[in-house]
Amino acid sequence: MSAPVAAPAAAAPVPPPQPGTPEFEAAIVATLSAPAKWSEGPFSNGTGPNTLPVLDTASLTADTPFPALKNDLFLRTARGEACERTPVWCHRQAGRYLPEFKETRRLGDFFTMCRTPRIAVELTLQPIRRFALDAAIIFSDILVIPQALGMEVLMKEGVGPVLPAPIRTPDQMSRLKKREEVDVKSSLKYVFDAIRLCRHSLQGTVPLIGFCGAPWTLACYMIEGGGSKSYTQARRWLFAHPAESHALLSLITDVLIEYLVEQVRAGAQALEVFDTWSGELTQQCYDEFILPYVRKLAAEVKAQTKAQQLPSVPMTLFPKGSDSAATLRAIAQTTEYDLVSLDWATNPPEARAAVASAPRSVGLQGNLDPAVLYCSEEQIRAHTRKMLDAFGTGGRLVANLGHGMLPDHPLEGLRVFVDEVHNYSPNLCKQPAQQQ
Amino acid sequence: MSAPVAAPAAAAPVPPPQPGTPEFEAAIVATLSAPAKWSEGPFSNGTGPNTLPVLDTASLTADTPFPALKNDLFLRTARGEACERTPVWCHRQAGRYLPEFKETRRLGDFFTMCRTPRIAVELTLQPIRRFALDAAIIFSDILVIPQALGMEVLMKEGVGPVLPAPIRTPDQMSRLKKREEVDVKSSLKYVFDAIRLCRHSLQGTVPLIGFCGAPWTLACYMIEGGGSKSYTQARRWLFAHPAESHALLSLITDVLIEYLVEQVRAGAQALEVFDTWSGELTQQCYDEFILPYVRKLAAEVKAQTKAQQLPSVPMTLFPKGSDSAATLRAIAQTTEYDLVSLDWATNPPEARAAVASAPRSVGLQGNLDPAVLYCSEEQIRAHTRKMLDAFGTGGRLVANLGHGMLPDHPLEGLRVFVDEVHNYSPNLCKQPAQQQ
Repeated sequence: MSAPVAAPAAAAPVPPPQPGTPEFEAAIVATLSAPAKWSEGPFSNGTGPNTLPVLDTASLTADTPFPALKNDLFLRTARGEACERTPVWCHRQAGRYLPEFKETRRLGDFFTMCRTPRIAVELTLQPIRRFALDAAIIFSDILVIPQALGMEVLMKEGVGPVLPAPIRTPDQMSRLKKREEVDVKSSLKYVFDAIRLCRHSLQGTVPLIGFCGAPWTLACYMIEGGGSKSYTQARRWLFAHPAESHALLSLITDVLIEYLVEQVRAGAQALEVFDTWSGELTQQCYDEFILPYVRKLAAEVKAQTKAQQLPSVPMTLFPKGSDSAATLRAIAQTTEYDLVSLDWATNPPEARAAVASAPRSVGLQGNLDPAVLYCSEEQIRAHTRKMLDAFGTGGRLVANLGHGMLPDHPLEGLRVFVDEVHNYSPNLCKQPAQQQ
Repeated sequence: MSAPVAAPAAAAPVPPPQPGTPEFEAAIVATLSAPAKWSEGPFSNGTGPNTLPVLDTASLTADTPFPALKNDLFLRTARGEACERTPVWCHRQAGRYLPEFKETRRLGDFFTMCRTPRIAVELTLQPIRRFALDAAIIFSDILVIPQALGMEVLMKEGVGPVLPAPIRTPDQMSRLKKREEVDVKSSLKYVFDAIRLCRHSLQGTVPLIGFCGAPWTLACYMIEGGGSKSYTQARRWLFAHPAESHALLSLITDVLIEYLVEQVRAGAQALEVFDTWSGELTQQCYDEFILPYVRKLAAEVKAQTKAQQLPSVPMTLFPKGSDSAATLRAIAQTTEYDLVSLDWATNPPEARAAVASAPRSVGLQGNLDPAVLYCSEEQIRAHTRKMLDAFGTGGRLVANLGHGMLPDHPLEGLRVFVDEVHNYSPNLCKQPAQQQ
């Protein structure tokens, strides 16, 4: 039988160089030395435009003091101080909607990017170069914690995270490391290195936010093995294995406490806890399996940073989908989070009333529907004003999206949103807070 | 070049017979004459077990009176009358978790099943034969309305609904039929025929619920072209094309009004409006793009059935994901729905308080987390009691799941849930309603 004539092979895509090789190092250097992209400016917050290069780690020692912060609007708002305008930043502002992000991401797979501090810093700085944002958030992923607990996590293009060996039954928890076996400082060193380098490289332009996934949200991925429509397997665990669910959530929480404290030690100036799947639970499950753990997380991070004479940093909780007044009241009344971030479907006046029930002052963050950023400039400005109006006067608001930037969002949409917050919010901030 | 030797072909699966052929007719007859599966019984609601055959349409004329209703617990509860126990049924109770459902579904593709009244009735009756449920819901799909408006809708195994030519831009609305071009009575005759045949075949065992998708939820599918994570394109429409969004929602609403009135004429004893994606909207969008249309739908169906001297039937709205008190208050205060169905994440006491703000009496339906049905009998009973307790005393509750039955749910889970509602609810029903 004659061999069939082979079709001419298509040019195979060049695979990215392997981490640790000289080729990988050369690719990083080439990326970081390319001219940075930034907007025309000057920015209306007076901080840009600038190229903000990723600094050379060789020029920094552990004792090099961090540069003075030039724009502390986010931190002052988070602490409940009166501000002249509403600070603004966006979840997933370091993301695929930026052409330079997509270019840099070609250097390797997703978790290689997370584990290479210079690249993580480059990705963190990219939106700060382009837009008049009032905070940066370190480029990383919430699933570094399941990895530190011993689970394999892959990021599949077009699919999302995949955990090939999920914890589907309680006896499979034996695959996880015990708390004392998790060396947070060494296994997650790359995150702390990135935070330190980023804090220096930001040159005080805006504060740097560190983050983690909330215990329940991380448990969802660990049990389901990846993204899911409504995390039925994880929810089943709570009903079918309550004791083991508490053990799993406790383990995650204890690792997260050290993880966040070390982020502060490395230079994070604020922290956000992403509870992306908190809206999937019944109120009773929320009260039993979420609230005690997010409460402990904030309380312990605040207590331990204080005991260790680390800076006191504001903390934000994003309980996505949990827009019941009972939940928001419970968060405000029984936890120490300084800000509660709201998804776009949450009603701002209800949220204001709920957090106003707490004896302490709790700020809000949110909540423009990300779908608005696809619209015309005029529409974006109008809906941004409506959103700001819905939160009322008197400040104590950080403007953000109700979820995150999407890969096909136009750059111009974000620019206009940020600009309208700058234009419109000063008038709202100078009026006294409305009574709830 | 010699031809490659073909591998022996695997036995090709026999394709189902084409609708309208004698083979299809023979397959239907064979299915309907097979011994029906039912549980051991007797049911604790006294209605079963029975085989409830699909009646022969030849034995029925348009004048054949419907059989007297033996179990009107659902209807009495929906109307706000005092009841001796809580009625119970489940969203998607006619579904793939039933082995006989999967068997019958082999007769053809999904929409062929919807369009063949005897099969739709068989599928509707299957759960009623097995479980002591207090209501049946006609087997159909919400996407028959986009079909009636001229759109192609496919149901792809493992994917869900696919609309190959979605309405991505306002000018593509020209693909849709105009209101006057939609002949509801003829194009959806198969639904009305199924309802009429089912009402007879139920032999008065339990009431028959008709349904439709809410205008916004149908618009989501029509714009996105299928299921989506958060219907960003549909949400973008509301911000970018408000006038055209109103035109689209008006068109859908006007068709739905006639569709539901005709369901009542055919024999539906109650109606449910599924707003599966209502939780994806901001409060402002809910108030502008959902509320006026679901309000008009209920008001017009009630007014037109009255004007046409058709029976007055209770209506339920399921605003899935919309658990804000403001939304629930608005539904209770400004619409005519008799019941509001809650998803599992909605807090029953908050919902009770919200609907209690209305001048009229509004009942609730819900809201066991479907994940509970995977648990042990003891756990299912305990969580069912907790759920019933959360709604409080005094009745005005229809027990249901917070979403629907899932394909891998165990049969036994549903049996135990239904049984525990029967056992536990009489004591709650006989106590006076708690003050909110």
